[in-house]
Amino acid sequence: MQDHFLNRYRTVRSRTEQICKPLKTEDYVVQPIVDVSPPKWHLGHTTWFYENFLLVPFLEGYPLFHSEFNYVFNSYYESVGARVLRTDRGNLSRPTTEEVYQYRAHVNEYMEELIQSEIGVHENVRFILEMGLNHEQQHQELLQYDIKYILGNNPLFPAYSTMNKKADSNEKATALTFESIQEGVYTIGHQGDGFHFDNEKGEHKVYLNPFEISNRLVTNQEYLEFMNAEGYSSFQFWLAEGWDWVKMNQINAPEYWHKIDGQWMNYTLSGIQPIEMEAPVSHISFFEADAYARWKGMRLPTEFEWEVAASQMGKVKDNCFVEGNRLTPAIQSEEGPHYFGTLWEWTSSAYRPYPNYTPPEGALGEYNGKFMINQMVLRGGSIATPSDHFRITYRNFFHPNLRWLFNGFRLAKSL
Amino acid sequence: MQDHFLNRYRTVRSRTEQICKPLKTEDYVVQPIVDVSPPKWHLGHTTWFYENFLLVPFLEGYPLFHSEFNYVFNSYYESVGARVLRTDRGNLSRPTTEEVYQYRAHVNEYMEELIQSEIGVHENVRFILEMGLNHEQQHQELLQYDIKYILGNNPLFPAYSTMNKKADSNEKATALTFESIQEGVYTIGHQGDGFHFDNEKGEHKVYLNPFEISNRLVTNQEYLEFMNAEGYSSFQFWLAEGWDWVKMNQINAPEYWHKIDGQWMNYTLSGIQPIEMEAPVSHISFFEADAYARWKGMRLPTEFEWEVAASQMGKVKDNCFVEGNRLTPAIQSEEGPHYFGTLWEWTSSAYRPYPNYTPPEGALGEYNGKFMINQMVLRGGSIATPSDHFRITYRNFFHPNLRWLFNGFRLAKSL
Amino acid sequence: MQDHFLNRYRTVRSRTEQICKPLKTEDYVVQPIVDVSPPKWHLGHTTWFYENFLLVPFLEGYPLFHSEFNYVFNSYYESVGARVLRTDRGNLSRPTTEEVYQYRAHVNEYMEELIQSEIGVHENVRFILEMGLNHEQQHQELLQYDIKYILGNNPLFPAYSTMNKKADSNEKATALTFESIQEGVYTIGHQGDGFHFDNEKGEHKVYLNPFEISNRLVTNQEYLEFMNAEGYSSFQFWLAEGWDWVKMNQINAPEYWHKIDGQWMNYTLSGIQPIEMEAPVSHISFFEADAYARWKGMRLPTEFEWEVAASQMGKVKDNCFVEGNRLTPAIQSEEGPHYFGTLWEWTSSAYRPYPNYTPPEGALGEYNGKFMINQMVLRGGSIATPSDHFRITYRNFFHPNLRWLFNGFRLAKSL
Amino acid sequence: MQDHFLNRYRTVRSRTEQICKPLKTEDYVVQPIVDVSPPKWHLGHTTWFYENFLLVPFLEGYPLFHSEFNYVFNSYYESVGARVLRTDRGNLSRPTTEEVYQYRAHVNEYMEELIQSEIGVHENVRFILEMGLNHEQQHQELLQYDIKYILGNNPLFPAYSTMNKKADSNEKATALTFESIQEGVYTIGHQGDGFHFDNEKGEHKVYLNPFEISNRLVTNQEYLEFMNAEGYSSFQFWLAEGWDWVKMNQINAPEYWHKIDGQWMNYTLSGIQPIEMEAPVSHISFFEADAYARWKGMRLPTEFEWEVAASQMGKVKDNCFVEGNRLTPAIQSEEGPHYFGTLWEWTSSAYRPYPNYTPPEGALGEYNGKFMINQMVLRGGSIATPSDHFRITYRNFFHPNLRWLFNGFRLAKSL
Repeated sequence: MQDHFLNRYRTVRSRTEQICKPLKTEDYVVQPIVDVSPPKWHLGHTTWFYENFLLVPFLEGYPLFHSEFNYVFNSYYESVGARVLRTDRGNLSRPTTEEVYQYRAHVNEYMEELIQSEIGVHENVRFILEMGLNHEQQHQELLQYDIKYILGNNPLFPAYSTMNKKADSNEKATALTFESIQEGVYTIGHQGDGFHFDNEKGEHKVYLNPFEISNRLVTNQEYLEFMNAEGYSSFQFWLAEGWDWVKMNQINAPEYWHKIDGQWMNYTLSGIQPIEMEAPVSHISFFEADAYARWKGMRLPTEFEWEVAASQMGKVKDNCFVEGNRLTPAIQSEEGPHYFGTLWEWTSSAYRPYPNYTPPEGALGEYNGKFMINQMVLRGGSIATPSDHFRITYRNFFHPNLRWLFNGFRLAKSL
Repeated sequence: MQDHFLNRYRTVRSRTEQICKPLKTEDYVVQPIVDVSPPKWHLGHTTWFYENFLLVPFLEGYPLFHSEFNYVFNSYYESVGARVLRTDRGNLSRPTTEEVYQYRAHVNEYMEELIQSEIGVHENVRFILEMGLNHEQQHQELLQYDIKYILGNNPLFPAYSTMNKKADSNEKATALTFESIQEGVYTIGHQGDGFHFDNEKGEHKVYLNPFEISNRLVTNQEYLEFMNAEGYSSFQFWLAEGWDWVKMNQINAPEYWHKIDGQWMNYTLSGIQPIEMEAPVSHISFFEADAYARWKGMRLPTEFEWEVAASQMGKVKDNCFVEGNRLTPAIQSEEGPHYFGTLWEWTSSAYRPYPNYTPPEGALGEYNGKFMINQMVLRGGSIATPSDHFRITYRNFFHPNLRWLFNGFRLAKSL
Repeated sequence: MQDHFLNRYRTVRSRTEQICKPLKTEDYVVQPIVDVSPPKWHLGHTTWFYENFLLVPFLEGYPLFHSEFNYVFNSYYESVGARVLRTDRGNLSRPTTEEVYQYRAHVNEYMEELIQSEIGVHENVRFILEMGLNHEQQHQELLQYDIKYILGNNPLFPAYSTMNKKADSNEKATALTFESIQEGVYTIGHQGDGFHFDNEKGEHKVYLNPFEISNRLVTNQEYLEFMNAEGYSSFQFWLAEGWDWVKMNQINAPEYWHKIDGQWMNYTLSGIQPIEMEAPVSHISFFEADAYARWKGMRLPTEFEWEVAASQMGKVKDNCFVEGNRLTPAIQSEEGPHYFGTLWEWTSSAYRPYPNYTPPEGALGEYNGKFMINQMVLRGGSIATPSDHFRITYRNFFHPNLRWLFNGFRLAKSL
Repeated sequence: MQDHFLNRYRTVRSRTEQICKPLKTEDYVVQPIVDVSPPKWHLGHTTWFYENFLLVPFLEGYPLFHSEFNYVFNSYYESVGARVLRTDRGNLSRPTTEEVYQYRAHVNEYMEELIQSEIGVHENVRFILEMGLNHEQQHQELLQYDIKYILGNNPLFPAYSTMNKKADSNEKATALTFESIQEGVYTIGHQGDGFHFDNEKGEHKVYLNPFEISNRLVTNQEYLEFMNAEGYSSFQFWLAEGWDWVKMNQINAPEYWHKIDGQWMNYTLSGIQPIEMEAPVSHISFFEADAYARWKGMRLPTEFEWEVAASQMGKVKDNCFVEGNRLTPAIQSEEGPHYFGTLWEWTSSAYRPYPNYTPPEGALGEYNGKFMINQMVLRGGSIATPSDHFRITYRNFFHPNLRWLFNGFRLAKSL
C-alpha cells in the first residue's frame, strides 16, 4: 500500500516535469493574461501544497526549503496567509526555474520519507496526499492550457512538440445522431469510496424531463457554418453578456484561429496548421457554444443530463487522453455508443453546490466551494486530463467567457 | 372586457405617475450609478413600449410624438435599433420631464383609442398590452429602488414622503422556526391561462431532497450579530468573488446603513431613521445573504424549494405591498403560517432557463432569456411590488453584488 | 467707491443668472463628462465663495443658509474641508435649482450689507471681493462651455438661443499674413495695481528669438483642408500622446462637428448649423492645433511671443465678447492690425510658474498654483469672456486633450 | 577613423552585455510595470536599430536574421510598421535570450563589415551609426533602471551584484550652500560639431532673472525630515495631480524604501540595505521633489538655470558614472565647486521644443520630438549614464510621476 502511494507519487510528480520538458527557460516565466500562470509557478505551487499541508504539519524536523516560498507559491488559500497577487505571478523572475526544480527535489526527498514513515499511513495523511496528487493532476491540465496560450500568442508561433498523432486525412466524423433519455428520477453525484472532490460528493436524486443528447461533439466544419451564417454578428443568438463580450473583444472565431491568405488556420501545440474540419471545435467560450446551440434551435445539456447520458455511453477511448501523445482532439469517427474524454463539454448548468454540500474544515475547504458563483460546469475530461484523474461525476468549472481550456460542446434538446 | 382593459390601463398608468408625485423636477434627471435609471427615463420608456409595440404596428395613422424618442427610450432591444447607452441616461437633460409627461398623455390618448377599437380585441394586441402593463409594473418597482438610491445617496438625505406606516415600538419578530418539506417529485412553473412571463412558463417536475425552510426573513437584529461577530472580515464565510467585492468596495454593513455618533441608522424613504431591529434586514447582496447563512451553518433555499414551500404558506398579507403605503418592510410578528411579499428573497439558484424554455419570436423574445447568465433568482415580491403583478412562480433576477433593490433572505437547511 | 463695488457686485451676480435664463430646470442638473459641471453647481459654488471667504469670517452674526452647503459647493479647496467628488456633481438632484437661487438671494442680501458696512472697505475684504467677482466671471465662461456641451451632446440638439449675430454670407476672412517681431529682451507679466491673478503677476524679462506670428486665427476652411489631407490619419504630424488620443477616441473632426448627409455641420448654441467656413475653427484640442501647425511647417507661438505680439495688436473689437450676443466666433475679416478676443488661443507653452511666483497664504493659494503641471497655456479671451475680465497678461490653462472650451489657434514661425 | 568607430562600436556593444552579465535567464524576460522593458527586449531592440536603419538600407546582400524581428523589436517608430504593444513585451518568452544574443552576434558581424566598407565612411552612415551608439547607451541606462525594478520588486529581493563601492561610514555630505547667478542674457543649447540629439540643438538666448542654486543634491537625511514633518499628508505642498497620485498610490516614501522592524531600509542593487543618510535621496517623482522644495520655501531650478549654473560647476568626478562600479549614488562630501553626474536632477521645466527645433526627416524624426508633452526635463546624468554619453546641454525627460529612474534633485530660489 505504501509502495502503491510511493509509485503513484513518483508517477504524478515526474509527469508534471515531463510536460515541461520541451520548454525553454523563458517559457516558464511569462503570464500573458491573468488566467494563465507561468509554468514555473505551477511547478512550485504543486510542490508547496505537499510542503504546506503535509511536511510542515506532519514530518518532524522538516527543514523549509525557503521561508518566502509560502508567500510566493500560495495560490488562493486565505487561511494560509498573504500571497503574491495572481496578476503579479508573471512579474517574478525569481526564484529561477532551476531553483524551483531544486525545491521540487527537496520536497520529493522528504515526501518519500513521509510516505514511507509510520505517520504516512494515517488516514488523514493519506487523504491529504491523495488530494495533493489530484491537485497536481489538475495543474498538469492547466499547464497544458497555459503552455499553449504562451506559445500560441507569441508572434513567432513556436511549436511545443512535433510528435502529434494526426488524423488520417480521409477520416470523417460520424453522422450526428441523438439519443433519447426517458424522464424520471435519477441519482447523481459520487458514490462509494474512491477519491473524489467535495463538490461532486453527495449522492442525491434529480428529476429529468425527457430529452435527447447528441452522439458526438460539434465539429470545426459545423462551427464554420455558424460563422459563415453571420453567427458572430447576429445578436439574437447570444446572451446579452455574451453579445457585449463579442463586441468588446471583436471576437469572430474560436481562440487560436487565424485567417491567413484567405484560409482558416489554427495554432496547435505542433504549430500553425490548417484546421482539421472533421475534428471537434475547441477553445470556444460558453457564450459561443450557447449561441451555436440556439442557432441550431437546440440547447446545451444540463450537467445532470450529461451525467445520466454518460453512464450509458461506451467506454472512454484510450487514445483520447494525454497518455496517448495527443496534442489535438481526435476526430470522433466511430459509429455506435457515444463516448467522452476528447474535450471538456460546456453544460448549461451554473456551478452551484449539491443539496448536502459542505466543504471540509480548514484550508482545504477553500478548494472548490468558494468558487460556486458566476461559473458554468463542464463535464467529460479532455486530451489534457490524466485518465486516472477523471470520473463521470467530475465537475469542472470556468467562467463563461474563457476559451484557453481544451473544451468543446455537445447538443441537446427537450422533447 | 374592453372596459376591464381600459380600467386596468388607466390604473397602471396613473400609478406610475403617483409614485413620482413627491419628486422635484431635478430628481427625475440623475443617474448616480449605472443600475439606476433617471425617473423620467422610466416614465418615457414604459410609454415607448406601448408606442413601439402597439401604436406603431396596430393603430393606423398614429402620429409619432417625436421621431427621436425611439432612440432615447429604447432600453435594450437590439431588434428595435440604436439606443442611448445605458450609462448615458443620466446625461440627458432633454426631453424635459414636462415633455415626457406630454408624451405619456399623447400615447395614453391613442392607447385608449386602440383599446376601444376593433383591433383592440385581437389576441395579439391583448397579449402585448398585458405585457406592456406588466412591464410598466416592473418599472414601478424599479422606480422605487431608483428613487430611494437617488435620494439616499444625496448628502442632504431628503425624505421621499413622511407618510410611512411605522411599526409599533413594542412589536417583535416572531421566533425563528423551521418547517420541513418531504423529499419527492414536485411540479414547478406556471400552469394555466393567467398572465405570466416566458421565464416562469413550462410546468415541469423537479426532485427535492428533504429540507427545512425558515418561517420568516432574517431580521436586522440577527444580521447585526453577524456584523458584530466580524462577519465582514472573516473570509471563510464568503464566496471568493464576494470576498473580493467586500474588500474592493470596503463593505461593512447593508446599503443605506450609516453609523452616526456610534449608533447604526439607516436611510429610509422617510429619511434617516434609527434601524428597526425587529424588521427584516434589507438591501443586502447575494454575497452577504450567502455569507450570513454559512456563518449560521445553513444555506439559502433553492428557487424550487422556495416555490414548493410558498405553495404551503399562508395568504400574502395585504399590507405588505405598495398599496398599503409601506415604505419600509413590516416586522414579521405573526405566528402561524409563513408568508411572503415583504422583500424579494435571494435564493441559491442561478437564473437559468427551464427545460422547455423558448423565448417568443421578435423583440419581446429579448425580454427575459438573454439575461440568463451570471444572475441569481429572487422570489417572493416586496413592498414595492404591485400585488396584482405577483405570482409564486414569478422569477426575479439580479447580479449577486446588487443591493439597491428591496430584498432580504430566508434560511434553509438540508436534512 | 462702495457704490462702485455694489454696482459691480450686482452686475456680475445678475450676469450669471442671465446666462442661465434660457435653461430648463433639467439642464441645470446633468454632468455628461467630468470636465463639465452642472449649471446649478456653478450657481451655488460661486455663491459659496462669498459666503465662505467673506460672510463667515467678516460679517458678524451671518446665518449660514445651510450647514451642508460647504460640503456640496466646495470645488477643490483642500483647506476648506471635505467635498462632493467632482465626478459626483451630476448625481445630486438636491439642492434643487430653486433652492440654489434662494441661496444666491440669501447671500446677496448679506453681501450687500457687508459691502456697505464699515468692514466692507478694509483692504482685505476688498481684495477677496474682487477675487470673488473675477472668480464668478471665470465661472460665467465655464457655464457657457458647459451649457454648450450639455445641449450639444443631447441627441435632440436643442438650441440655447436663436438670437445669435450671424455673419454676412459674403463675408470673407482676411488674407493670412505674418508680422515679424525682432529678437531681444521683453518684459512679461502683470504690472501695476489693477486686479490680476497670482499666476500672471511678477513682471520679469524674457529673451525672444526672432519670429513671425499670423494676423488671424486659422479658419474652418483651412482646417478642413488639413482634414481632407488625411491629417487625422497621418501620425507624423502628431505628438505621441496626441496620436494615442486620436486613435483611442476615434477623433476625426473638431468637437461638435457632424457629417450629415455628406455635409459637415456643427452644433452651435443656436442649434445644428452648416459650418461657417470663413470663421475661425473652434473646439479643437492642443493636439489638433499642434498637428495642424506641424502640417503647415509652422508652430504655435509661445505665451511670451503671444503677449509681446498682443501688445502691438489693435484694440479688441467690442463685438467679440459676450456683451455682444455672440454665440459663435465672428469672421476675422478686417485688414490691418491684428486683434484677439474671438477665441482662446492655444500657445506652445506649458503652464508653469513665473520666476518669482508665490501663491497667497491659505485657501486662496490653491487658486492657480497647484494646477501648474501637465496643462498648456491659452491666451486671448473668447466670445464667452466678459470684456472687463480680460487682460493681455491673462494666463488661461487647460489639459492638451480638452476641446469643450471656446478656443482656436494662431500660427507662428521662427526666423 | 574607421578604427575609431569600430572600437567605439565594440565598446558600446560589449558594455550592454556586461551590464546583463549578472542576470539569470528569467530576469531577461519579465516586465513588472509598463515603464520597464524586459532586458532581452533591450538587447534585441538596440540591435534592431542598426539592422533596420543601417544594414538593411546600406549593406547590399545583408541577410535578415529573422523576418519577424522587426515586429518584435520596434519600439515606437510608427514609420517602420506594426509592432508588439509596449504592454505586451513581458508576455513574450520567445525569441529566447540565447537567440537574442545570436541576433546580436549576427548583426555585429555585418556591422563590422559595414563600418570597414567603403560605404561605412559616408556621412549619413556615420550619422546614423553615432545615433545608434548613443541610442544603445541610453538603453544601457534604462537597462539599469529596469533591472533594479525587476529585482527590487521581487519578494526575494535578490542582489544584482555585491561589488558596490560603499561610503565610508563617517563620510558626511558637505554643508548645503547656495551660489548666486546674475540676471542677464545667456546662451543655451548645443553648439559645435560633436554628437548631440535634435532636442538640445539650436543655440539660442534666454533671459535669466537672478537666482540661487544649491551646491549639492538633497540628502536622504534631509528628505526624511520632510517625511517626519508630515510632508506626505500635507496637501498644501503638493501640485493637485501630485496629491491625487500620493493618495491613489498610498505613497509615503521614495521608491524602494521599506520600513522593516521600525527602521527605514532601501533596496539597492546590492540588496536590502540600511539607508545611507548622507547620500542624495533618489527614486523620487517630480511631484515629491517639487513638494519638498515648496516645504523648504524654495523651488526647483529651470533647465536653463541649471545649464548656466552647470557651466560654472567643477568637473564631473570620475567615480560618479557607471565606469566606477557605483550601484548607489556617492555622498557629495567635497567642499568647493558644485558638480553633477550623481543622479539626474528634476528641473522645473516642462519638456518643450527649443525655438528653432525641427526633427529630422523620416523615422529618426520620431526620436525625441513627439514626446514633448506632459513630461518634465531632467539634467545632470547619473551613476548609470556612460560618461562619454553626457553633455551639459543634454535634456532627459520623464513623466512627473515616475520614480524608477536614478534621479534626485537640487534646490533653487529666486532673488
